[in-house]
Amino acid sequence: MNKNQTIQIIGAGLCGSLLALRLGQRGFKVEVFEKRPDLRKVDISAGRSINLAFSNRGIKAMNMVGIQHKVEPLCIPMHGRMLHDIEGNTLLSPYSGKENEYINSISRTDLNALLLNEAEALNNVTIHFNHKCTSVDFENNRSHFYKYEDKAEFSKPAEVIIGTDGAGSALRKSYYLGKKFLFSFSQDYLTHGYKELSILPAENGGFKTFKNALHIWGRDSFMLIALPNLDGSFTVTLFLSYEDGEYNFNNLTTPERVTAFFSTYFKDALELMPNLLDDFFKNPTSPLGTVKCSPWHYKGNTLLLGDAAHAIVPFYGQGMNASFEDVTEFDKLLDENFTDWESLFKAFETGRKKDTDAIADLAIDNFHEMKGHVNNAIFREKRNLEMAFEKNFPKSYASKYALVTFNENIGYREAMLRGRAQDKAILNMLADGDIETPLKLDNKTWLEHTLKQVQAETEHILEEDRIAKNMQH
Amino acid sequence: MNKNQTIQIIGAGLCGSLLALRLGQRGFKVEVFEKRPDLRKVDISAGRSINLAFSNRGIKAMNMVGIQHKVEPLCIPMHGRMLHDIEGNTLLSPYSGKENEYINSISRTDLNALLLNEAEALNNVTIHFNHKCTSVDFENNRSHFYKYEDKAEFSKPAEVIIGTDGAGSALRKSYYLGKKFLFSFSQDYLTHGYKELSILPAENGGFKTFKNALHIWGRDSFMLIALPNLDGSFTVTLFLSYEDGEYNFNNLTTPERVTAFFSTYFKDALELMPNLLDDFFKNPTSPLGTVKCSPWHYKGNTLLLGDAAHAIVPFYGQGMNASFEDVTEFDKLLDENFTDWESLFKAFETGRKKDTDAIADLAIDNFHEMKGHVNNAIFREKRNLEMAFEKNFPKSYASKYALVTFNENIGYREAMLRGRAQDKAILNMLADGDIETPLKLDNKTWLEHTLKQVQAETEHILEEDRIAKNMQH
Repeated sequence: MNKNQTIQIIGAGLCGSLLALRLGQRGFKVEVFEKRPDLRKVDISAGRSINLAFSNRGIKAMNMVGIQHKVEPLCIPMHGRMLHDIEGNTLLSPYSGKENEYINSISRTDLNALLLNEAEALNNVTIHFNHKCTSVDFENNRSHFYKYEDKAEFSKPAEVIIGTDGAGSALRKSYYLGKKFLFSFSQDYLTHGYKELSILPAENGGFKTFKNALHIWGRDSFMLIALPNLDGSFTVTLFLSYEDGEYNFNNLTTPERVTAFFSTYFKDALELMPNLLDDFFKNPTSPLGTVKCSPWHYKGNTLLLGDAAHAIVPFYGQGMNASFEDVTEFDKLLDENFTDWESLFKAFETGRKKDTDAIADLAIDNFHEMKGHVNNAIFREKRNLEMAFEKNFPKSYASKYALVTFNENIGYREAMLRGRAQDKAILNMLADGDIETPLKLDNKTWLEHTLKQVQAETEHILEEDRIAKNMQH
Repeated sequence: MNKNQTIQIIGAGLCGSLLALRLGQRGFKVEVFEKRPDLRKVDISAGRSINLAFSNRGIKAMNMVGIQHKVEPLCIPMHGRMLHDIEGNTLLSPYSGKENEYINSISRTDLNALLLNEAEALNNVTIHFNHKCTSVDFENNRSHFYKYEDKAEFSKPAEVIIGTDGAGSALRKSYYLGKKFLFSFSQDYLTHGYKELSILPAENGGFKTFKNALHIWGRDSFMLIALPNLDGSFTVTLFLSYEDGEYNFNNLTTPERVTAFFSTYFKDALELMPNLLDDFFKNPTSPLGTVKCSPWHYKGNTLLLGDAAHAIVPFYGQGMNASFEDVTEFDKLLDENFTDWESLFKAFETGRKKDTDAIADLAIDNFHEMKGHVNNAIFREKRNLEMAFEKNFPKSYASKYALVTFNENIGYREAMLRGRAQDKAILNMLADGDIETPLKLDNKTWLEHTLKQVQAETEHILEEDRIAKNMQH
């Protein structure tokens, strides 16, 4: 590709700033426009420290741009789920039976700032803040902007325009409203919304509860989670129905009801959150949506990337990791011998969309798992068995969670198909008595025999699905 | 419900006119607004006779309003698929092993005219043509219209407004653009489009090819189909990719290429279509899309019904039948003791959406089946076995196609789950040699034994899916 072409990037969030950095490293002229003020200068988080799960696919992208050593100090390892039951008992459920497999809590602002710094350090990358993209004229390679500072409108052409402008993407909206081609599009909302709350640091600056875990208070039809921050605080998120159940966002309208709700269901959390009512009534309630669309590109002029192309719900901790992986995959194609952007964009979507569709579906599955199943006996048996497999036979077994989270060289779709088949195999073998209970997890011969059984049944399920599917498609 | 309330219906197509008739029969004051001219007075089909597949779920709805005896004379039974291979050989593949199970070809215009006549014969039903709904103010129960005749705009309130205005529904668009509530929505296009063509009647007024079948020329990546009309003609539809393959809609731009395409792939059809080129270049190419959305209603004021709520691709011949079934299901709820429309609308969507989602997915599956698998050896073996089951054990077996098409008292979702499990069972048993080939279809003892095997395997598959699914959700 011609390095003298200007690539315009709309949106300097996590995905856009990584893309700018990478394309800058490759020598392209990159011009980035971001709607919000510069988050390195203005605190746009309204006092809240929002964190995200950062794992292998994200790390792979940081290694691509050579900054993982700068990201690592921003990370707090979370080795497992700390499950809090309604009586306040806790149980740590590790994410993997392998020691080096864990996820990290990271501040969105810190990571975004690092990426912006790295990108801006390159001569061929410029970033403009406070520039809101209002629409993209994708037939004529031109974006329209509104400048908040002087309230001016202007437009800017570029050889290639890439929309990394998130779930509410202006480029995607232009595709949809333009009706110049058949544009498949979906927005799917869960009946639950979410609200961010916080556990503040202890008086000594330490953590009020166990630092190295993702805390979950799963209550079947709703849940609370908490992720640690470097300053000793936790960002807490309540996931709750808007209108169903005794307590819901629509009827939690008074301090009394909110307190009653938390003291009934989250007593141990409430004790750590004297600031609950302030947070609850100050912070917005936001919807949880999945966005899919196709095509992601128009001719060789414009391309959607990251959340703009595929926004997902947060329950697999993969939103940022998937967007970073977009950039890794896109970057790979730049090493191949494409002579025009259109072919490259097409190849990108063909190779990538099956995987982002898969993680979107997995993220919704995991919502149900986190709310409920982590409390369920047969689910715990499955987890215990899988953990023993991973610990004793690290090269032969990876659970669905591990395939998705820790196996960055396996695509999401393959991880989903194999992971679901494994889950189905184990659950059915447990239900049918084909795996003896109680599990003999300390007996290596038994474990090895059982692993072979599970692998055989998994292959059988995959093969049966393939035969039925090939006939269907 | 209060019968003095006015129910406004937007759209007097098949679904809207049936709904108007039924609500009229129940004594409601019904006012219908239709965008197009009255199809009983103006030929709006541009000379083409468009036909549809009409089957048990549709018949059930006609019986509900007591007019099936008037519909029957409009029907041409189609007992099976007449498969045309590339050499022009034909094979009739029956839709069922049971004699009384077949589908019908019916003229959209004739059926719609009948429904309009029946509805208009009621004093409490009025129908206004040439009134285009431009938007619905769903907060204030008021629809906005544009009158083509005098180019006037006006608006009209009603206690209840029901949008039966098809895939491009103005009410649905108002929900989407209004952003007053979380509206999940998807539009999904196939990469194929379609174009309508025709086989004209023979000179003696008869049919040029076998009358009582749905003709299919399946060519793996594209196909042609034909359905008979009462006047001796067939409506022919070409399903073809817009841009993939040697021949596609984008490159079939000259008479020479169109003729070359048809003489290569559809030689026997071409011989019946001297009018091909006229049709091809006169008729539009249209997209094939699936629309899903939720909620279907807002408070107790407005409701989407039929294609407006769930447009599907035509490959299962269930579009009209599904919309008619919407009215049957809605009508059932009117017999229950709901005291407000909002509860009734909610119950309707809760009970119905799982089924319309299922038929949407089944219709896409069937696209692949019709294009390709009807030509496939193992698929034919499966069909032969199923036909023998249906013929010999009519009470014990119904294929997926029969569950969907001929079992109007089983919901689409149940038909899909059971039908897919059956298909999977038979295909895998054939692949694994668990069913001996060649099939001994004339040996009743063998058949009965094999049926029991298939049933047991089907139950096993359903049970395994249930166990895995319960853990997932």
